[in-house]
Amino acid sequence: MYYSQTARLAVYAEGEFGKGHSKTAEGVIRYARNPVVAVIDSEQKGKTVRDVVGLDCQAPIVGSVSESLRFKPDALLLGTAWTGGRLPGAWRKDILTAIKSGLDIINGLHDFLGDDDEIARCAAEHDRRLLDVRRPPAELPVASGKAAGVSALTVLTVGSDCSVGKMTTSLELTYAAERAGRKARFIATGQTGIMIVGDGIAIDRVIGDFMAGATEQMVIAHGYDNDYVFVEGQGSIVHPGFSGVTLALLHGAAPEAMILCHKAAKTRIGELPFPITPLPALVALYEEMAAYVRPARVLGISINTAGLSDGEARHAVSAAEKECGLPATDPVRFGADDLLNALEEFRAMRGRTP
Amino acid sequence: MYYSQTARLAVYAEGEFGKGHSKTAEGVIRYARNPVVAVIDSEQKGKTVRDVVGLDCQAPIVGSVSESLRFKPDALLLGTAWTGGRLPGAWRKDILTAIKSGLDIINGLHDFLGDDDEIARCAAEHDRRLLDVRRPPAELPVASGKAAGVSALTVLTVGSDCSVGKMTTSLELTYAAERAGRKARFIATGQTGIMIVGDGIAIDRVIGDFMAGATEQMVIAHGYDNDYVFVEGQGSIVHPGFSGVTLALLHGAAPEAMILCHKAAKTRIGELPFPITPLPALVALYEEMAAYVRPARVLGISINTAGLSDGEARHAVSAAEKECGLPATDPVRFGADDLLNALEEFRAMRGRTP
Repeated sequence: MYYSQTARLAVYAEGEFGKGHSKTAEGVIRYARNPVVAVIDSEQKGKTVRDVVGLDCQAPIVGSVSESLRFKPDALLLGTAWTGGRLPGAWRKDILTAIKSGLDIINGLHDFLGDDDEIARCAAEHDRRLLDVRRPPAELPVASGKAAGVSALTVLTVGSDCSVGKMTTSLELTYAAERAGRKARFIATGQTGIMIVGDGIAIDRVIGDFMAGATEQMVIAHGYDNDYVFVEGQGSIVHPGFSGVTLALLHGAAPEAMILCHKAAKTRIGELPFPITPLPALVALYEEMAAYVRPARVLGISINTAGLSDGEARHAVSAAEKECGLPATDPVRFGADDLLNALEEFRAMRGRTP
Repeated sequence: MYYSQTARLAVYAEGEFGKGHSKTAEGVIRYARNPVVAVIDSEQKGKTVRDVVGLDCQAPIVGSVSESLRFKPDALLLGTAWTGGRLPGAWRKDILTAIKSGLDIINGLHDFLGDDDEIARCAAEHDRRLLDVRRPPAELPVASGKAAGVSALTVLTVGSDCSVGKMTTSLELTYAAERAGRKARFIATGQTGIMIVGDGIAIDRVIGDFMAGATEQMVIAHGYDNDYVFVEGQGSIVHPGFSGVTLALLHGAAPEAMILCHKAAKTRIGELPFPITPLPALVALYEEMAAYVRPARVLGISINTAGLSDGEARHAVSAAEKECGLPATDPVRFGADDLLNALEEFRAMRGRTP
């Protein structure tokens, strides 16, 4: 566990809360056990979290780190990130202020605060902790396909693109499985997931040769004493920048089942001139690539319908269902039960009962 | 250029020269411009390089670092590596001896000598350089597919497994293209290739998110003032441990042409219980996966026939040719001209003449 799940968090999302790059902030607010006591974004100051992102959270939005202090946070959690995950220069002053005010810093960027001379010195002087959640373990293995041997049903979320709901779908399935009486484990492979559940490895921060090995190690660690292991996927197998991370996760996790995640109405990969691959082609592609290590089936589709009306959302889900011939849902809006039912059926079919 | 290409090398291959794990030693002896003045392997002491690996090199094999000194090396090059590329404990004493004897150290392992307190201190005391060729640049981009825009014909070697001849094939094609009057550039993506040509980035040592970006950056740097860019491939798209590195290279390099490399008579991936995928299926798979960034064709097959008789080698090559319906050769044994001809034809067809 990298940090106490009772610590009070101030979530830093300066200039970005509720916009395209605050998915870490929103994921933590939605799912972490830690109380979020304030969100920092001077552009949205005075509003509530509920106002801006519609999440069930009473935290106020304040204009600065100093203003957040009256809500008694224990740590400042950096809640926004851009492609590449570098530390923006403008954050430095706010991070130093937070440390001097007695806060630990929780950081999910590629740039580690512990390696930054000025910030590390400041933290040492004020006896504060710098939690670089993306820092991988020092020793990792090369994968050999042996995650295929676990007794749990390993379920990997895969996607049409980045930021389409893979972490969210894996978390919602974990909770749905637990509600149904199953022993289920969420395996965090990205910074937000790690912040939410308190451990994991950010696979996109691992050295190429060990990405699949890091994934394999986590699946094996949890795959023998759970009914389900839900592995958070990353990127997309057709994304020009991140496809290598995605394939390493697929071959390292060696899932038996996959859930394909897509964001409704998205037509291009990231902001690049590459079209979203049609969902049925993605189903076939992920199954084809998985099979070189272990045969796996896509058993359902998760459609992120954020921003759509209920009617539009229902239409998007049923279009995906028809197009792929698989159960589909938006697990946040409509619940994950349809997907869990498909997994339960598959589990029974594979002789794993109850 | 990481190191002078006139520096005299002692190649360290203790206990391994000519066995399965000395491909760095053999690659450097075969292709580097640097004079190799001695090979260190106490088990083969007294033999010549020609005796053990059949390469055209006069260097003696000596029993220790101390014995190598009378051949006046400037640097000790660590020439063996295992999966995962960690520093074996037994090497430490020999590395320290070399430094104290006035040698620089050239190291291609994942473990960096510059980060090892004892070795770094010793090198500083004796004013010697530690060249960790696998250390990636500090700043690397995320790939966006833009290597597809270069004017050169980008040719990537892809494989049925690791250690089947991808670097060798790319080097032989580079030299064949130069002999044919083309301007050609070899892009090193692994430690041995970097040691041979003096620059490059070890993609398997790069953080997941930046693997494709590092590749893209190198292709763009050389893709506008060459007729050919030959990118050294890594791993295999179906290797459980390394497939992510392979796919990142494929999408980062955005080749128009590929050469599929295979080692004759190999039936399993590495020493794992996974069969080698049939070559025609691999041709289709690499073409399918490439096309998500840029349509590319496999234009020839390179068969590594090391260890076979001439008759067996000819048979293996013609079997691959027939199986795939593509020109095939062993570029080391039979030359790379058949593969180059296929590339020249393709280049002309794509309107790039002369």
